Amino acid sequence: MRIYRFKHKDKIHYGILKEEVLIPLRESISGVLKEGKEGIPIGEVMVLAPVLPSKIVAVGRNYREHADERGQQVPKRPLIFLKPPSAVIGPNDSIFYPDATKRLDYEGELAFIIKNKAWKLEKGIDADDYILGYTCLNDVTARDLQDKDGQWTRAKSFDTFAPIGPCIATDIDPSRLRIKTFLNGKLKQSGNTANMIFPVPELLMYISHIMTLFPGDIITTGTPSGVGPMSPGDRVDVQIEGIGTLSNRVMRVKP
Amino acid sequence: MRIYRFKHKDKIHYGILKEEVLIPLRESISGVLKEGKEGIPIGEVMVLAPVLPSKIVAVGRNYREHADERGQQVPKRPLIFLKPPSAVIGPNDSIFYPDATKRLDYEGELAFIIKNKAWKLEKGIDADDYILGYTCLNDVTARDLQDKDGQWTRAKSFDTFAPIGPCIATDIDPSRLRIKTFLNGKLKQSGNTANMIFPVPELLMYISHIMTLFPGDIITTGTPSGVGPMSPGDRVDVQIEGIGTLSNRVMRVKP
Repeated sequence: MRIYRFKHKDKIHYGILKEEVLIPLRESISGVLKEGKEGIPIGEVMVLAPVLPSKIVAVGRNYREHADERGQQVPKRPLIFLKPPSAVIGPNDSIFYPDATKRLDYEGELAFIIKNKAWKLEKGIDADDYILGYTCLNDVTARDLQDKDGQWTRAKSFDTFAPIGPCIATDIDPSRLRIKTFLNGKLKQSGNTANMIFPVPELLMYISHIMTLFPGDIITTGTPSGVGPMSPGDRVDVQIEGIGTLSNRVMRVKP
Repeated sequence: MRIYRFKHKDKIHYGILKEEVLIPLRESISGVLKEGKEGIPIGEVMVLAPVLPSKIVAVGRNYREHADERGQQVPKRPLIFLKPPSAVIGPNDSIFYPDATKRLDYEGELAFIIKNKAWKLEKGIDADDYILGYTCLNDVTARDLQDKDGQWTRAKSFDTFAPIGPCIATDIDPSRLRIKTFLNGKLKQSGNTANMIFPVPELLMYISHIMTLFPGDIITTGTPSGVGPMSPGDRVDVQIEGIGTLSNRVMRVKP
């Protein structure tokens, strides 16, 4: 099932995509899903960020090849950081290139969305009881500021630095998905989630021992190798098997 | 004016304290403040965290003496990090001592609360147009995990690691306030906000160039010297002139 959040005639809805038609949902994404009757062609709506999280927990260096290309060691446990909810944008929204940076990188990632409140999950739990589904996230990073500050927060927290979408895909297995990032149509990152150092259920468990996760919260699982810079005017696409393509343009001016 | 958020007969209110009596407010804290008619003695209510932010932006090494005691240099620009909203607790709530750490420190700080949406504020703005008021915040830190991870997120993001309160004090000048932290009644930190490297208006401006700040968001301004460890059973009090005292106990078990 692919769940979209979208705007149609000035109203915001959740809906399920069936053959290019969105069937609106009557309940919230974390409640029971009931389908409405009338479908809306996806071409007539504005697709929005699929969720507005209370927090975004991100994981650094979760693919060995990316740690290598950054000249860094693979961590012994998941290395987490936060991106603020104010950074979220949807598909088709623009990534804003701040004056403060001279090197703005894409990082294509698989992200998962929390379904039920999670605190101190123990081995043996079923991750599907806590994960609503999966989406694409571009962990936009001002690489020069990341290196300059030491702490990664500024480099990864500017408004528009967390594009997500296009939808939440449920019923997919996150353990072996092809993930690709394209810059102006050219393949730049090509990985597989099978190569994560800490796979999805382990990240969920680890983070749930630090902070309570709430419905709608996002955990993004790190980027494969091939990160690189974007320029104003560029289009960047993050494509994950079973989910779809998250497409954004880079702009010098914030809309 | 001191604005409290509190629970009385199972309802949550904002109110202004006048001679030990809380006068409930009819509107939200960011709207026009209208006072209700009947006062409620403060002894009859449960005081809550004064605000539930969409984000908490924290500032590291903003007092020279604290940078010195940690053996670190003073940063050239504010060094920011995030604490998740899930870490917020109120006065009288317990700080939870996680199993994962062997050294849990208090860090008493002055925090300010955003009143109006702020993006790219320029020199010459009046900070009071964007700041609702001030409160005490304890930037609880698992010191060993901070040093181990390099990134500070895990060390500062456990549930209960952001006690705030007891109230939001408006109409105070943040540039010269005594700030003290007591452990079991013993003075441990004694500073003055006059010694901040980057004062409040500069932090507001700097952060507003990175991320949009929304009403209710919290910015916490760093800790003076004298940080140190807490143990289960300890009581920690952060006291700031013109605001009051934020008091919390440390517990091994999360309530």
